[in-house]
Amino acid sequence: MAEGMHGKGKVVLAYSGGLDTSTILVWFVEQGYEVVAYLANIGQEEDFEAVKAKALKFGACKVVIPDLRREFVEEFIWPAIQANAKYEDRYLLGTSLARPLIARAMVQIAKDEGAQYVSHGATGKGNDQIRFELTSYALHPGIKVISPWREPEFYKRFPGRTELFEYAKLHGIPLPVTPKAPWSMDANLMHISYESGVLENPYNPAPDGLFNMTQDPENAPDKPEIIEIEFEKGVPVRVKNIDDGTEKTEPLDLFVYLNTVGGKHGIGRVDLVENRFIGMKSRGIYETPGGTILIEAHTDIEVFTMDREVRKIKRDLDIKFSDQVYKGFWFSPECEFTRFCISKSQEWVTGTVRIKLYKGGVYIMGRKSPFSLYNEELVSMNVQGDYEPRDAGGFIKINALRLQEYARLRSNSN
Amino acid sequence: MAEGMHGKGKVVLAYSGGLDTSTILVWFVEQGYEVVAYLANIGQEEDFEAVKAKALKFGACKVVIPDLRREFVEEFIWPAIQANAKYEDRYLLGTSLARPLIARAMVQIAKDEGAQYVSHGATGKGNDQIRFELTSYALHPGIKVISPWREPEFYKRFPGRTELFEYAKLHGIPLPVTPKAPWSMDANLMHISYESGVLENPYNPAPDGLFNMTQDPENAPDKPEIIEIEFEKGVPVRVKNIDDGTEKTEPLDLFVYLNTVGGKHGIGRVDLVENRFIGMKSRGIYETPGGTILIEAHTDIEVFTMDREVRKIKRDLDIKFSDQVYKGFWFSPECEFTRFCISKSQEWVTGTVRIKLYKGGVYIMGRKSPFSLYNEELVSMNVQGDYEPRDAGGFIKINALRLQEYARLRSNSN
Amino acid sequence: MAEGMHGKGKVVLAYSGGLDTSTILVWFVEQGYEVVAYLANIGQEEDFEAVKAKALKFGACKVVIPDLRREFVEEFIWPAIQANAKYEDRYLLGTSLARPLIARAMVQIAKDEGAQYVSHGATGKGNDQIRFELTSYALHPGIKVISPWREPEFYKRFPGRTELFEYAKLHGIPLPVTPKAPWSMDANLMHISYESGVLENPYNPAPDGLFNMTQDPENAPDKPEIIEIEFEKGVPVRVKNIDDGTEKTEPLDLFVYLNTVGGKHGIGRVDLVENRFIGMKSRGIYETPGGTILIEAHTDIEVFTMDREVRKIKRDLDIKFSDQVYKGFWFSPECEFTRFCISKSQEWVTGTVRIKLYKGGVYIMGRKSPFSLYNEELVSMNVQGDYEPRDAGGFIKINALRLQEYARLRSNSN
Amino acid sequence: MAEGMHGKGKVVLAYSGGLDTSTILVWFVEQGYEVVAYLANIGQEEDFEAVKAKALKFGACKVVIPDLRREFVEEFIWPAIQANAKYEDRYLLGTSLARPLIARAMVQIAKDEGAQYVSHGATGKGNDQIRFELTSYALHPGIKVISPWREPEFYKRFPGRTELFEYAKLHGIPLPVTPKAPWSMDANLMHISYESGVLENPYNPAPDGLFNMTQDPENAPDKPEIIEIEFEKGVPVRVKNIDDGTEKTEPLDLFVYLNTVGGKHGIGRVDLVENRFIGMKSRGIYETPGGTILIEAHTDIEVFTMDREVRKIKRDLDIKFSDQVYKGFWFSPECEFTRFCISKSQEWVTGTVRIKLYKGGVYIMGRKSPFSLYNEELVSMNVQGDYEPRDAGGFIKINALRLQEYARLRSNSN
Repeated sequence: MAEGMHGKGKVVLAYSGGLDTSTILVWFVEQGYEVVAYLANIGQEEDFEAVKAKALKFGACKVVIPDLRREFVEEFIWPAIQANAKYEDRYLLGTSLARPLIARAMVQIAKDEGAQYVSHGATGKGNDQIRFELTSYALHPGIKVISPWREPEFYKRFPGRTELFEYAKLHGIPLPVTPKAPWSMDANLMHISYESGVLENPYNPAPDGLFNMTQDPENAPDKPEIIEIEFEKGVPVRVKNIDDGTEKTEPLDLFVYLNTVGGKHGIGRVDLVENRFIGMKSRGIYETPGGTILIEAHTDIEVFTMDREVRKIKRDLDIKFSDQVYKGFWFSPECEFTRFCISKSQEWVTGTVRIKLYKGGVYIMGRKSPFSLYNEELVSMNVQGDYEPRDAGGFIKINALRLQEYARLRSNSN
Repeated sequence: MAEGMHGKGKVVLAYSGGLDTSTILVWFVEQGYEVVAYLANIGQEEDFEAVKAKALKFGACKVVIPDLRREFVEEFIWPAIQANAKYEDRYLLGTSLARPLIARAMVQIAKDEGAQYVSHGATGKGNDQIRFELTSYALHPGIKVISPWREPEFYKRFPGRTELFEYAKLHGIPLPVTPKAPWSMDANLMHISYESGVLENPYNPAPDGLFNMTQDPENAPDKPEIIEIEFEKGVPVRVKNIDDGTEKTEPLDLFVYLNTVGGKHGIGRVDLVENRFIGMKSRGIYETPGGTILIEAHTDIEVFTMDREVRKIKRDLDIKFSDQVYKGFWFSPECEFTRFCISKSQEWVTGTVRIKLYKGGVYIMGRKSPFSLYNEELVSMNVQGDYEPRDAGGFIKINALRLQEYARLRSNSN
Repeated sequence: MAEGMHGKGKVVLAYSGGLDTSTILVWFVEQGYEVVAYLANIGQEEDFEAVKAKALKFGACKVVIPDLRREFVEEFIWPAIQANAKYEDRYLLGTSLARPLIARAMVQIAKDEGAQYVSHGATGKGNDQIRFELTSYALHPGIKVISPWREPEFYKRFPGRTELFEYAKLHGIPLPVTPKAPWSMDANLMHISYESGVLENPYNPAPDGLFNMTQDPENAPDKPEIIEIEFEKGVPVRVKNIDDGTEKTEPLDLFVYLNTVGGKHGIGRVDLVENRFIGMKSRGIYETPGGTILIEAHTDIEVFTMDREVRKIKRDLDIKFSDQVYKGFWFSPECEFTRFCISKSQEWVTGTVRIKLYKGGVYIMGRKSPFSLYNEELVSMNVQGDYEPRDAGGFIKINALRLQEYARLRSNSN
Repeated sequence: MAEGMHGKGKVVLAYSGGLDTSTILVWFVEQGYEVVAYLANIGQEEDFEAVKAKALKFGACKVVIPDLRREFVEEFIWPAIQANAKYEDRYLLGTSLARPLIARAMVQIAKDEGAQYVSHGATGKGNDQIRFELTSYALHPGIKVISPWREPEFYKRFPGRTELFEYAKLHGIPLPVTPKAPWSMDANLMHISYESGVLENPYNPAPDGLFNMTQDPENAPDKPEIIEIEFEKGVPVRVKNIDDGTEKTEPLDLFVYLNTVGGKHGIGRVDLVENRFIGMKSRGIYETPGGTILIEAHTDIEVFTMDREVRKIKRDLDIKFSDQVYKGFWFSPECEFTRFCISKSQEWVTGTVRIKLYKGGVYIMGRKSPFSLYNEELVSMNVQGDYEPRDAGGFIKINALRLQEYARLRSNSN
């Protein structure tokens, strides 16, 4: 079918099945675009068949729903664990990590389907628009992006929820049960994030019943559970539940299992204010059970097996990585370089960490490794070995030399 | 009294009342030194009168026991809170912060008493010898330090515990109840640390009954407690218990109260391996109830009130500060400079954080500030204000330009 | 005169007297704006009276030409010298430093004149638009900026030089002598930059006759000249020509003198490719005689008087400062913070540097300072003092400990 | 031959043929050591046969003089060029780079010869002792180092030059022509450094006749010379003299040629004060002709071909690398990691730089590359392409958002 027949060409739309993207879909069709609806399975709870049916009903010429869960874990979450990645020290980047993956598949579909455009329903004030689009441009520099919530012809047509609802009724788009969602959420395998609505007042606590992946710590089991996580080159390769013997080794299984057991114990809830790339502060609430456990465990085995000075350099890279990912630059020369260097640092990050999970807490209990740089004999107060205590005196004196000179020359103290 | 009368001059000895420093005291007297015994009150549990009596009995010519608790909180702990200070991401520096304070007072006593020497009982493999001595040299470049555990004439005389015990018996120094302590500990207002002995095997979990400041989370109250901490310029100025109305505003009181309530809820236990300055890895277990709560709360209010880009620079300084303090360089040009800059960054870090304490967990619930840079209206999805969504499109396109060029020039993709 | 009379309100236009900004001026008047023409005297060669006459002739209701040279030197160049500021290791930021100053005055005029708009003739691909506008928004958040070269109604009216020339002829705007300038330049007290035109091919050498502030090194005097620069707290307070006795102490005089003597000896030419904020690489040629001498001298006296570890931290801040300034963020929380910290680091950067200027080269010959941390006696191979060589052995052994452990544990080498 | 026969075992001594190491050699033999004299050919001017004869005469059981020039250039200088390595912004690390190479070979000889010890004549206040010994311990953790100038039995025997001279006369060791050298120097392929003696007064200029590798710029040719350097992956692979057609491609030849042509034009002299690892400041004068040219050229081609953000990260690594190398940590986990990452960044650093050499100056004239990220068309003011100027407006507005908010919330300005 020629482009001419549809007037405006073909667009791949990241479609969720919700009110906003359904409206966008219908609007695109109205405008004369041919629409390929695209929904990534990244582990969110979803009735994918129902979404597909909806898309077709609203005029999509095709619906593509790839299962990206494996890639998500292996290509995106694992590098983030290696980087102990936290944006501004606290946010574990659950959404930030999923966006480049979703956009990569979207761009691939655009190439496969010969579409000139990609589109998404992200708002004009958020980070996600940036993450989607930077990825699209980076992987397909000639692509054109249509972001309806930034197009005056679209957003002036729908200045408020009222107009959106009217349009939806007119076109048979199902309305949400509540007229105004009390908050918005984004879910994937790694986390669920909550923001806006009642959460916009940063002093309001998270309402009861907000969370979906994690038990409230107060309702979590009274009995702790002990697990062990084994890492190879900074990547988890085995989780073992010491209490019931469960073992997982396949990456996706392993991660899902950590979500389950972590969620059960109420692990990984955070309430924070963060700085968006766009320059404003926003309040977000996150639950990241498996990711939280893994970063705690990985940090522990990393310090145990990595040289101190290498880790200092690597930590600087970690901070850069987190910033790059948050801002949507996963597919960029700098993030590729950073990931490459971090990955190199993980060569010996191999070993096992024992962890207690209890009512929201992740408690490291011990660790072991065939490649540890920890030397029990050397550190022991009871063993001298060929460590010569006098050397420490020289070490201190030489380190003090600069300080003494400073004191003498600056203050003419004795 | 002339130096000649004592042969070797006067030494100020950091004296704990324990076996090691009592032995050192006796040995110094034997060698012909005049010994001023010095014990800093930095909030540890101690019968100070009993220690004083012991020191005099073992031959000290004088005993000085200053109360340094206020200085500890205001001059050392507060700057560390402003810096969100954690060494290697996890250790809150409880011992590292106390050492320069203790050594500063020690050096002052040496000046006051006309002593030529200072001395301590720290071992030759640890960090504390470095922290004591760098401070001493920095503040009193002409001082001489005697570190018996690095002096061959001393440590060859006491190659093992056996010789130490014999000597102790001979001189009436009380022996510890257990012949070999299962671990060693260091306590002050901020934390208690545990290391060596059975803890040297890094895979062994912390034994039952190890901890002193904190309840085991499993035995902590089933009912959470809500507190609010108010900060001014990055320093806590008020703690309020929302449940029972308790309020504390005086720095020392406030910190002690946070230790109490934090300890009750099992807050602040960590088990980690760290890299000593001396170059070896060691395993440490720490409990830091009040400090843990404060760093969580401070981080939260800081992100809320501080510009994003200022905080990025400040975070680099935080990491440097933690390193400097860990290594014993509190009194150094670089640490003074770093503290000065960090302190400047705190100008607007004023506001209140609400926190739930529950079974080992510190949960931020919300925050408010008269100087927040958070703008609820700007961030709202429902309010456009003079924010122009199209601008975000330009922002993204310009950010993408470099990525597109890279893709085009590197891969000749379209 | 009421706004209504002019339809569109009042605009302060950064006016150079050249073809572009004259066209913009006429166009603004045509569109119904009241235009205040504004030209900053920042030390460029210019017939200010002629520019003023032109602006009035083309319809400006007022012309403001403040002399900003003193502020430029004291408030902008001096902090850059303290920061040894070079963008990407080579560009001395001559234009970047002037822009926030120019924009600050522009915004002040807008406030004084009650103008709703500011405007400039910078192109849509460069850095200067960003520097002008970020400053404007930072200092006057409610201001509106009109950037004609980014306004379709303007740039579509003038798609090429032809249309511009026709319009100019029609309105009596004098045309440049050559129809197509072989390059463009930007001049101020600190430097002249050259770009575009024949310089766009980065392999083409700078054409003969390009430079204006500096002699070609090949034509510079055959006899070197010796000067001394005295710094106080990182700022030059005296320049003395050792050969002819000339002395300058007033900041503007001193800087102009360094330009003169530096220019005479061909100092400060660089040819480089740089990364614009906008994401593209561009080629620039710069001549910065006085600035080049000052940064060489300042670096020297700084290392001489500043503690090593303070300088390491300060150097990181220098790099950040250069980046901030290049990108137009002089007036930003982060640049204010960075300048504050750098300034603190300069407390003791006081002393004198002796320099030889010769055919393009700046050769440091020696330095002295009342606050140096250099200790001739300590460093001497012939004086041992209380430096104990054995200590160095301990220092090395302890530094080696980590390396030996690494070798032993990683490679099982002996 | 059993160790017992020689009493003390076998030592590999880094032997220069000079007074100090000859004395050490004789002293070792006196003490009952078997001495292997070792002299590395790293490009210094030397009569190697004469040194060999001397060593044998003074009692060495063997003399080993490996030619390390190729390794020096390819394994040590090239990585430093890739890192644009300058310690404290100015020192090109000529000595620092040679030490790990010399020590690596020394340790290898110790292994080959079954020696228990290595030894060198470096003083107890300098950096070289550290560089030698850290390398030795890192590559051969079981080795023992004897550093006579730190051994009381040695340095107390030779407290001044007088005792040394007497001992030398007694044992037929030739004395230097001048009783007290006016300065000391260290020469290799990359540079010659000068320090101590009359140079210890940092205000004294370098005396006439100090330099050996470079012509005084004042006496350098009046006619400039143009060369081109071609890089592949950050390493120079071809130098071409445009004036006379000379070409060099083999690494050692190429580097020697750059020294020759650079030296002829007086390139690469610096006079500076630096911070030794040991904590004191010292004054050094260096001449590094080829290295200076290469770093200028490499920096240029790097900016031309490397992504801006990658280079920002890489520059941080460069600074770390320079520090590591200066301090003697070439063979360390952190320096290996740093080199690995830097090397990765050089993948596309390929192209040609044209340079004018003239009287001490290195002037970049232009550059070209098949992998440049410079896009002449994109940057041109005369070509719009698909660059949309309006986008820059959005970019600026979004960047300004944070600044406007800051101004509004902090100062309540309009």
